[in-house]
Amino acid sequence: MSVHTSNAPDGPVLEPLDEAECLRLISSGGIGRIVYMGRYGLTVLPVNYVLYDGAIMFRTSQDSPTGEDLRTGIAHAEYSVAFEIDEIDPVRREGWSVLIHGPAHQMTTDAELASVEESGVEPWPGGEKEHAIRVTPSRITGRRLRQR
Amino acid sequence: MSVHTSNAPDGPVLEPLDEAECLRLISSGGIGRIVYMGRYGLTVLPVNYVLYDGAIMFRTSQDSPTGEDLRTGIAHAEYSVAFEIDEIDPVRREGWSVLIHGPAHQMTTDAELASVEESGVEPWPGGEKEHAIRVTPSRITGRRLRQR
Repeated sequence: MSVHTSNAPDGPVLEPLDEAECLRLISSGGIGRIVYMGRYGLTVLPVNYVLYDGAIMFRTSQDSPTGEDLRTGIAHAEYSVAFEIDEIDPVRREGWSVLIHGPAHQMTTDAELASVEESGVEPWPGGEKEHAIRVTPSRITGRRLRQR
Repeated sequence: MSVHTSNAPDGPVLEPLDEAECLRLISSGGIGRIVYMGRYGLTVLPVNYVLYDGAIMFRTSQDSPTGEDLRTGIAHAEYSVAFEIDEIDPVRREGWSVLIHGPAHQMTTDAELASVEESGVEPWPGGEKEHAIRVTPSRITGRRLRQR
């Protein structure tokens, strides 16, 4: 017995996106998802990001799960993570997703924290103590789902 | 030098969600993200899912990156993955996210494929050959971001 899809073969198609197109799509910032192997296994958390100087920047509270992991992991070493952004229209069944891989780095020096301010990235959850994280892309892949 | 947030301490707060509330939030199905450690490292892909019989169900093309990994990994063994769903309003700065952990299982028997049909889950990308995957939650966590 095979699985039949009601919209195949006329349904939307997936196309790979090149790096330049991926960067263009995510350049306006917004909501993305930081993904890493943390103390509690695979962790995925939506954050408010900006693309600044070619890197993903976001802030996270020290009290959040990300913050806890950062204290014990990311904070003290370059740490390989993924960052995912997508924009999908469920009605039109079209959209795109971009996946970034690279090291996560906690911004701590005066120069780094100045660039955090410059980037304009703001966290949503209130709180005084927080981390500012930069993910420098080492690999950028993406795909677009579009109607034929 | 410390990082100051313009909206702290009056910004929105993060609250943990219990399992029942998480299941309620994701019960209507829609777009979620399958997350796993694949051949190319951490992989995150949006898919169209339904919650059926307490489990996440989705379909994926054999030609997609997920499909490739499935052929070599998930397809032949129970494979621990994560599945993330979120709904965030960037204007109101409110929303929620749910993270599910559990084994991914490829549905292959007649009985399993009948339940795939019953669940009504449809993939978006057209294509005749595909996998139907079930993720059975072993852990469900979530959090809500809301204004004070």
